[in-house]
Amino acid sequence: MAKERAGMTEETQYMMDRIATKEPENVQTSGDAKEMRAVVLAGFGGLNKLRVTKKAMPEPQDGEVKIRVKACGLNFLDLMVRQGTIDNPPKTPLVPGFECCGIVESVGENTTGFEIGDRVMAFVNYNAWAEIVCTQVDFVYKMPEEMTFAEAAAFSLNFVAAYMMLFEVANLREGMSVLVQSAGGGVGQAVAQLCSTVPNVTVFGIASCLKHAAIRDSVTHLFDRNVDYIQEVKKISPEGVDIVLDCLCGDNTGKGLTLLRPLGTYILYGASNMVTGETKSFFSFAKSWWQVEKVNPIKLYEENKVIAGFSLLNLLFKHGKCSLVKSVMDKLLCLYDQKKIKPVVDSLWALEEVKEAMQRIHDRGNIGKLILDFEKSPTPLMASDSTETSEAGEEEEEPEGDNDSKERMPFIH
Amino acid sequence: MAKERAGMTEETQYMMDRIATKEPENVQTSGDAKEMRAVVLAGFGGLNKLRVTKKAMPEPQDGEVKIRVKACGLNFLDLMVRQGTIDNPPKTPLVPGFECCGIVESVGENTTGFEIGDRVMAFVNYNAWAEIVCTQVDFVYKMPEEMTFAEAAAFSLNFVAAYMMLFEVANLREGMSVLVQSAGGGVGQAVAQLCSTVPNVTVFGIASCLKHAAIRDSVTHLFDRNVDYIQEVKKISPEGVDIVLDCLCGDNTGKGLTLLRPLGTYILYGASNMVTGETKSFFSFAKSWWQVEKVNPIKLYEENKVIAGFSLLNLLFKHGKCSLVKSVMDKLLCLYDQKKIKPVVDSLWALEEVKEAMQRIHDRGNIGKLILDFEKSPTPLMASDSTETSEAGEEEEEPEGDNDSKERMPFIH
Repeated sequence: MAKERAGMTEETQYMMDRIATKEPENVQTSGDAKEMRAVVLAGFGGLNKLRVTKKAMPEPQDGEVKIRVKACGLNFLDLMVRQGTIDNPPKTPLVPGFECCGIVESVGENTTGFEIGDRVMAFVNYNAWAEIVCTQVDFVYKMPEEMTFAEAAAFSLNFVAAYMMLFEVANLREGMSVLVQSAGGGVGQAVAQLCSTVPNVTVFGIASCLKHAAIRDSVTHLFDRNVDYIQEVKKISPEGVDIVLDCLCGDNTGKGLTLLRPLGTYILYGASNMVTGETKSFFSFAKSWWQVEKVNPIKLYEENKVIAGFSLLNLLFKHGKCSLVKSVMDKLLCLYDQKKIKPVVDSLWALEEVKEAMQRIHDRGNIGKLILDFEKSPTPLMASDSTETSEAGEEEEEPEGDNDSKERMPFIH
Repeated sequence: MAKERAGMTEETQYMMDRIATKEPENVQTSGDAKEMRAVVLAGFGGLNKLRVTKKAMPEPQDGEVKIRVKACGLNFLDLMVRQGTIDNPPKTPLVPGFECCGIVESVGENTTGFEIGDRVMAFVNYNAWAEIVCTQVDFVYKMPEEMTFAEAAAFSLNFVAAYMMLFEVANLREGMSVLVQSAGGGVGQAVAQLCSTVPNVTVFGIASCLKHAAIRDSVTHLFDRNVDYIQEVKKISPEGVDIVLDCLCGDNTGKGLTLLRPLGTYILYGASNMVTGETKSFFSFAKSWWQVEKVNPIKLYEENKVIAGFSLLNLLFKHGKCSLVKSVMDKLLCLYDQKKIKPVVDSLWALEEVKEAMQRIHDRGNIGKLILDFEKSPTPLMASDSTETSEAGEEEEEPEGDNDSKERMPFIH
């Protein structure tokens, strides 16, 4: 046992010890209890703010579905939440997570369309990383029969985001070209697959060269993030590309805009650079936000360019577009049934391994999606990598709570 | 005759006198001469920089079509050119004008697809306002049989721009809503007609109330530019609109963005505010350019919004998209043949009335398109209005030539 644990971080060791000594019976038999296991973020900051603990089990309200969770998706956004580098962060402590799948355990009043025992996937506005999730029926979708829970947890957010960006925002059509700056990630792999459903689409993928062997077949051209890929893309496509998908939001934004061909669309769908190791303290985060190149509309006019922002979670939970998302999900499940798309799962992690999983995303080691698997015991086979690196925000403690959050990020209000 | 001229500006009077005394034979019989009549802009500035004069007649080069011009379109952009408030203005003197129609008189070598006598409309990169225009075959389109020359001159730029913005940039679909900030202009009327070809599209038009009676039927809801139409639109459509078309580019840009619903597209296709009477000197023009609100991509991400710039002339002459424009023109001519669209002509003007015509656009008096009609003699029925107003740039002389243009507008390079 000691040998198996050799690669874990100190934190995981601590959590597991805690679970083993303090809460042995709940961990094993939480199914019938009124409490449930959940990942809790105690305050914004580094990995040490995360705990696996017990919480009161929620009951479904009007229009809600109660789901016994089998698996959850872990996204880059969860790292941003952990560090508090999002707009209007909620109060801590909180249970992170925006997507899960599992089995319907009960339904609230005035909830139609789902029955106990249905296998479903769902979006939820936080609170996904728990054994039980209650969420509005508008955000719940039935899983196809042959879809596994791991696939389902890898499916919803990445494919819906990729589909909406390509077809709702950018209007991808035959013969177009797409550049995706994180080709190896969950969205990147979904983008590559969806592009292959349209004839004659060229996909330029950017990824660290460590991932190249694994993802080479998924894109048309693959470039190393650390070389000057702008010049390389221009050699192949001197006019530029029709769509640029950027989840980094940093120096690359300007680069990506120069690659856009006239009438092309630049889509910013995340801000991964905010949680890289380059920026160790909050103040340097803030600085990197400020440094995002603002866009002069006159310049867009002169150059015939389009710039778009896309946040699926805001679309769902702030902008009330759940029926549009539902129609997109229907189309995606059709494509899945036709075996035209298939979620790429990077790795499965036990709840207690959430820190190692986060570290892996932080280090951009993943190819496809990381899954928190509720049926998995902690056997962190991959954690040995993550102990070698130091994670942003880990070293320096930041003030907890969210009372000062408005002062900290006034520029996006 | 003196009575008929009562309403003309002093300049027109001067021009006509000049024509009548100095160049009587050329004006009447230019058809066979090696010279042609043309409008010439002597230097950037007010209306007094415009002259109707004789110029050497061009001959078609390789791949060019030589057109005997019957009518030309006059656009807001021509006012910006006159004042030099465009990016990279060309050297003066120059012949303004970007679109014309007429009859093919000859073709250059390696020019296929057109024959002498064809009725055509064409885009040209300046030099349209002349009796003879030579332009590359890529920019020339055959006119439908029942289309008049006045209609053709009102058709190409406005309808192609409107179509591409609605369907190429913004992907207009059934049930969407569109706000057009200059509903009475040539593009605005084309937008309204094209929206009516898609089921269940709501058009919010903004126009000065003087135009309301004339254009009320072309849009769903009509608002006065001088009232707080943002609140009025929100009353009808609390979620906002899907597409905003802005040719003003000033304070309204920010207003328009607030009206955009999630996943909506804001399109900037001009900068009319640069030539309003509010800004009398170049330095205030420059200031108004600077004041255009820059867009933070992070904000677009938070709000799920899209901002686009559209310049048809750059698309044609800088970005090499003539084959895409050709395919759009084909679709538009189909719609014209099906009588689903029909260009709105505001008024016809003789070449010598170009200043009065420009004044009318400047004063935003037009409903639909102003046409320079080569077969019309100067009978300025409408010029009486224009002498009452003072035009921006008319009072203050600006330095001529373009050597200092880069210094004058460094911020858009």
